[in-house]
Amino acid sequence: MLKENDRLKDILEGIKPVDQRWIEKARGRTAQLVMPSRALGRLHDISERLCGIQQTLKPSIGRKAILVMAGDHGIVDEGVSAYPQEVTGAMVQTFLAGGAGINAICRHVDADVWVVDMGIIPELDTIHIKGGESLLINKIGNGTANFARGPAMSREMAKKAIIAGFHQASVLFQNGIEILGTGDMGIGNTTPSAAIGALITGADLDAMVGRGTGVDDEGLVRKRDAIRRGIELNQPNRDDGMDVLSKIGGFEIGGIAGCILAGAFHGCPVVIDGFISTAGALIAYILSPKAADYMFAGHCSAEPGHRTMLNYLNLEPILDLGMRLGEGTGGALAMSIMEGAAQVFKEVLTFAEAGVAGKESK
Amino acid sequence: MLKENDRLKDILEGIKPVDQRWIEKARGRTAQLVMPSRALGRLHDISERLCGIQQTLKPSIGRKAILVMAGDHGIVDEGVSAYPQEVTGAMVQTFLAGGAGINAICRHVDADVWVVDMGIIPELDTIHIKGGESLLINKIGNGTANFARGPAMSREMAKKAIIAGFHQASVLFQNGIEILGTGDMGIGNTTPSAAIGALITGADLDAMVGRGTGVDDEGLVRKRDAIRRGIELNQPNRDDGMDVLSKIGGFEIGGIAGCILAGAFHGCPVVIDGFISTAGALIAYILSPKAADYMFAGHCSAEPGHRTMLNYLNLEPILDLGMRLGEGTGGALAMSIMEGAAQVFKEVLTFAEAGVAGKESK
Repeated sequence: MLKENDRLKDILEGIKPVDQRWIEKARGRTAQLVMPSRALGRLHDISERLCGIQQTLKPSIGRKAILVMAGDHGIVDEGVSAYPQEVTGAMVQTFLAGGAGINAICRHVDADVWVVDMGIIPELDTIHIKGGESLLINKIGNGTANFARGPAMSREMAKKAIIAGFHQASVLFQNGIEILGTGDMGIGNTTPSAAIGALITGADLDAMVGRGTGVDDEGLVRKRDAIRRGIELNQPNRDDGMDVLSKIGGFEIGGIAGCILAGAFHGCPVVIDGFISTAGALIAYILSPKAADYMFAGHCSAEPGHRTMLNYLNLEPILDLGMRLGEGTGGALAMSIMEGAAQVFKEVLTFAEAGVAGKESK
Repeated sequence: MLKENDRLKDILEGIKPVDQRWIEKARGRTAQLVMPSRALGRLHDISERLCGIQQTLKPSIGRKAILVMAGDHGIVDEGVSAYPQEVTGAMVQTFLAGGAGINAICRHVDADVWVVDMGIIPELDTIHIKGGESLLINKIGNGTANFARGPAMSREMAKKAIIAGFHQASVLFQNGIEILGTGDMGIGNTTPSAAIGALITGADLDAMVGRGTGVDDEGLVRKRDAIRRGIELNQPNRDDGMDVLSKIGGFEIGGIAGCILAGAFHGCPVVIDGFISTAGALIAYILSPKAADYMFAGHCSAEPGHRTMLNYLNLEPILDLGMRLGEGTGGALAMSIMEGAAQVFKEVLTFAEAGVAGKESK
């Protein structure tokens, strides 16, 4: 226990804000590119933030990876999901077979897929490798407890989940990954995510809770009711990220928070996917607000509360395509846009280099 | 003249609506993919439309190209642009040198860049090849006339512009390009585009006219005034695409309309870029409403009237990143999303193939 407390303290103390001077330098270069002022809009903001994070004027989106964090959720006992719980493990197998949405999109954007068992119910082989995708085991438990009836996990487990996510992401960064996307798999996990979102942002619970994988009207009522009871019963302290995670969170949500802290710690960009990943980002943000400097929001989910969560983090999503799959799909797809932004920044000539006249002065 | 009339008639008669049965078949496959119903949102719509256009369940975004149509505009005499007119030719040279925004983005998405001189003022070498980018010459004139004082071009020139664009795009399709994006370069060309947009959609002129490359408040007043006078003087018939193009259009806008008709004629998808490309799309649509079946809107421009034009065409933009450069940049970037959509459609396993349980039935 003491060791983990120390480790977390070291992590949080190791996170530095992004150096604004690099962002300013980058803005200076953007202003010289042979196009009207900031005519590529958000692409400039993205490339300049990358310059700030990487402390360079040659931003690079080289080797990419998605860490798909998987976990099961006791809250499914309340009838909050349209799918049976065994789908979590079955989808993990599908990721490893290369057959899911995240695999197809990662092949397209040339990103590695790593799947982490953060706490699903079934036991899978360690380091199962098939079709190039790898499984990492960091099982904190065989699914969380039902948070409508008590805390989802102990505070120690919450800490372990975050440190495990931090560790897995750190290994990838140390092995040359330059940008990491967070992904999730866990039947029922829009329920803890909505609970975290409502608690931390202070938004109305009903507006925060959507249909997830597609529950019907009665399921939606059960889901809202379960969250309301869970928050009332557990009384999570919204200023204490570890308390929130342990009482109403999930193992994969903790893992995602750890990934994001790792990006901030190592000075690398992290692309947050959708609703569940953003719940993890909120936990990371409560633990270290400076971590937000390293976050990119891959997309805006169709899940209604997602925009509110992103606004709280002051993040503007790159894509808005009505996606709501999770797995890291929105973040992976956005990496391709970020890579384009970096290439524009590095490759477009300046007005002077191109020999093109600038704006007419009066 | 007679020959060109016949040619255009053949083109328009050769355009068939997309076969809805293929789209239905594609929706059937989407429903089986191992994910909640349509959980990848717009990616499904994109891949299904590609299936319809290509008449296949193996949609392919293979070889890609952007045709950047360049032209000059007499309307700049009215003080409607922030940049001097010689920038058009200088930017064409920059495209050929591989140094502009469109070049960087096309390298990123692996698309060819073809630049067409549809009627810029300077004379450049024919088939100038440098850095892999090629210049095609289809000069209809050395810039249009000032449409605030008379028609921009004759009806014959308008027809020539459209047929030239059709021809250039057809050659690319015949040489194996599977998806084409439209691009534009022409100082002053948001002015004819706004005129076309306001006339065809019926939207308020002031709402349709934006700052283009960045005119100041007085420039904006001059721009709106010039368009108002041009429409009043020329009285273009909004139901006659050729009349609209000739009176208030531009050579590159005609070329873009021709490109889009070529996609529809050959059964290939065309990605429309921003404000100027969408003005071309409106001309193509007036000539053949069925052509809209083959159009994808790459992005929503920061130019305020663009959304209104896209709504008129019933097109939902893929990206919305505050871009307003033109050149084909938004369309090129969107191709990467479309390619991801096609890969998801082809590569994701079905529930049955993955052995994953579906939604719980009651």
